Amino acid sequence: RRSTQLLIRCHSTTSTKNASIGQRQQLFMVDEASPGSVFFLPHGTRIFNKLVQFMKVQQARYGFQEVISPLIYKKALWETSGHWDKYKEDMFKVEGFENNDCDGNHTYGLKPMNCPGHCVIFNSTLRSYQDLPVRMSDWSSLHRNEASGGLTGLTRVRRFHQDDGHIFCTRQQVGEEIAKSLRLVKLVYGVFGMDNYRMTFSSRPDEHIGSEQEWDEAEHQLTSVLDEVVGKENWNTRDKDGAFYGPKIDILLKDNFGKEHQIGTIQLDFQLPARFGLKYKGEDGELHQPVMIHRAVFGSVERFLALLIDHFDGKWPFWLSPRHAVVIPVNETHKEYAQKVAASISGELLEALDAPAILESHRFNVDVDNRSDTVGLKTREAIVKGYNYIIIVGDKEAEAGKVAMRSRDNRKIELLSPDEVRNMYIKLEESFE
Amino acid sequence: RRSTQLLIRCHSTTSTKNASIGQRQQLFMVDEASPGSVFFLPHGTRIFNKLVQFMKVQQARYGFQEVISPLIYKKALWETSGHWDKYKEDMFKVEGFENNDCDGNHTYGLKPMNCPGHCVIFNSTLRSYQDLPVRMSDWSSLHRNEASGGLTGLTRVRRFHQDDGHIFCTRQQVGEEIAKSLRLVKLVYGVFGMDNYRMTFSSRPDEHIGSEQEWDEAEHQLTSVLDEVVGKENWNTRDKDGAFYGPKIDILLKDNFGKEHQIGTIQLDFQLPARFGLKYKGEDGELHQPVMIHRAVFGSVERFLALLIDHFDGKWPFWLSPRHAVVIPVNETHKEYAQKVAASISGELLEALDAPAILESHRFNVDVDNRSDTVGLKTREAIVKGYNYIIIVGDKEAEAGKVAMRSRDNRKIELLSPDEVRNMYIKLEESFE
Ligand SMILES: [Zn+2]
Ligand SMILES: [Zn+2]
Repeated sequence: RRSTQLLIRCHSTTSTKNASIGQRQQLFMVDEASPGSVFFLPHGTRIFNKLVQFMKVQQARYGFQEVISPLIYKKALWETSGHWDKYKEDMFKVEGFENNDCDGNHTYGLKPMNCPGHCVIFNSTLRSYQDLPVRMSDWSSLHRNEASGGLTGLTRVRRFHQDDGHIFCTRQQVGEEIAKSLRLVKLVYGVFGMDNYRMTFSSRPDEHIGSEQEWDEAEHQLTSVLDEVVGKENWNTRDKDGAFYGPKIDILLKDNFGKEHQIGTIQLDFQLPARFGLKYKGEDGELHQPVMIHRAVFGSVERFLALLIDHFDGKWPFWLSPRHAVVIPVNETHKEYAQKVAASISGELLEALDAPAILESHRFNVDVDNRSDTVGLKTREAIVKGYNYIIIVGDKEAEAGKVAMRSRDNRKIELLSPDEVRNMYIKLEESFE
Repeated sequence: RRSTQLLIRCHSTTSTKNASIGQRQQLFMVDEASPGSVFFLPHGTRIFNKLVQFMKVQQARYGFQEVISPLIYKKALWETSGHWDKYKEDMFKVEGFENNDCDGNHTYGLKPMNCPGHCVIFNSTLRSYQDLPVRMSDWSSLHRNEASGGLTGLTRVRRFHQDDGHIFCTRQQVGEEIAKSLRLVKLVYGVFGMDNYRMTFSSRPDEHIGSEQEWDEAEHQLTSVLDEVVGKENWNTRDKDGAFYGPKIDILLKDNFGKEHQIGTIQLDFQLPARFGLKYKGEDGELHQPVMIHRAVFGSVERFLALLIDHFDGKWPFWLSPRHAVVIPVNETHKEYAQKVAASISGELLEALDAPAILESHRFNVDVDNRSDTVGLKTREAIVKGYNYIIIVGDKEAEAGKVAMRSRDNRKIELLSPDEVRNMYIKLEESFE
């Protein structure tokens, strides 16, 4: 057998806890075959997908259009973007078979970020000022070649995903776009009950590109939006800590151990638009250079997931939970009824297998525990695994067409019909509880 | 400006048509920065995502559990799987910075298929016969290093996605799993109205691994399931055309030009389980080797999309359409009403921006055409772009709180309330029309 390990490289307090919950709930694993690339197991994938779905729905309302962009790009693109010069050792180099590229250039970089690909898309057609802002979102896999010694669980990885977005806009639009990005940040963290964050503004470093006037204007836009959206007292400045290509706002979340983690970011960029020669046609008929804003709310989905595990201590709120309920038949004779109840609550098996299931429907993760252990033992195990609800069916329930349900955190048992359970679950999901 | 091209490498009839629809509807593009990797533009991404969502919902009912597995794996894994020996020149080699991997092995392969990663997951814990079949699905990006001369549009690419699935089961379960896979194939192609396909069975080649008895049994299982599910007359045999590791069933779809394309596939595999030393604990308490079934229904999502463009001639059925409706205000004074109507039909903007939008809701792609052209011109353009419905609002409609709607293919105009339109759209989506 090959040695596969469940997150063995976790050292810090947060990630040790992460590892044990990840293992107990079978959420993810790592393996020596790909250090730093997390394998999401089925239940971890459910949470991952739910986070993505959640953000996609919110981002669409904020005017983002999702794109799917390539993962490997020829060296020439990374030279244009500046990565080949400044970032080469942190990227994975990809080599094609040398006879396969007719232009003779078979060296690629595996992308560490989406920005250059989005510049290629922006540049693929001539945009007018009326088309701006163009807001692209992307969920691509990103790779950064971190040293293998530093890799831990979900937080220091080589492969990760971002809720990445780039806004291409006019200089006049920057303020409103930043304000909207901050509103989205507040909205999102609010849903997860993560109130323990602060925002920092980073101003121009000594070495920077662009004119002082451009920086004055950009810094003023960012700080006045911060005042307006988060309030004068609720952010602070990191002097000269901006990127050389533009000022930025970072969102730092404090975990239960008091440690701060950078999650969201909003960065202005004057440089990439210049390097890629991005242009739009202005109202004056002339070509102008758009401003580019890089922004992410979760930041790395993997790291955000690690923070969520910590924040909830593995007790997932219903809507995010990979295990909504388990149905436990009291004995052999109740197995069939248990199956029927699970199907009717989950909404998964209601349709015949030879007809297509409709797309927009509430589907819940409901399992049946058919093993031949006692109800007490199965209930305890279900709580360890993190099921939000435990549903027990015996003679009384089967005769009444009902179920006996208790929650993970409360022993009180309620007698409900499967429909009542399903409706309750729909309400929980829709209210993000 | 860099030269970005819309699918210029298309030569065959199918792909020329594909390219022109792809361009007209702004679905996707290619660029020299990444030959063979398609950039999906926002409207192409909508179709792509809908196909993925559709298949995820169906597969869940067939017992598949989605996983997210790494894209790069160390050379050692590809040696175990046999790819490094037989397939090296078709793979992209990935090199990390040499000091970054503490084991000194910094050569990776960018995965051309998911199977080895799924074997790693299977092997990460000891499974019992009661856990089988284990069915994993995966939507990872896959890369194959095709020669750049042969790359065309969506059909010959270097990067693609599959509705990939692997079933790990006992030898006794093979028949039922194949039968279910065939049922899913029939179900899926039926939804798209693709009836012009045939199935082929490929038997053992002269060079093969495994005993004659195993092959006899496997071939018998496949052919008797074919008889049962698709009917004796509806499949044919390709003698000795199976893989050296097992027999297979291929599904070939005939396009409008009579050309056949291989899309779905179902392959039995005795080899990978042996190479990876996969085992499960049987009812007898002993360790046994599971059978592995590779199966895909769409096959490459990119190629399936190309076939769909051809099949529908760019006239997307409502449920798959990236452009459900466009609202055209008759003049300046109707713009506000047009916006309100679009929001109420799409379901997108109904919620306040500072509250989270619920996840499970019908959302439609409804645009407003606010340009100052005539209604006639805008209608013609909307039809070219492929909107399924054109909604016109003027004085009469605004006063009555209604809209005048016509379909892409029928000039007849109906007067409806926004709610009636939305309900009609929900019905269309739910019935896959
Ligand atoms: Zn960026
Ligand atoms: Zn496979």
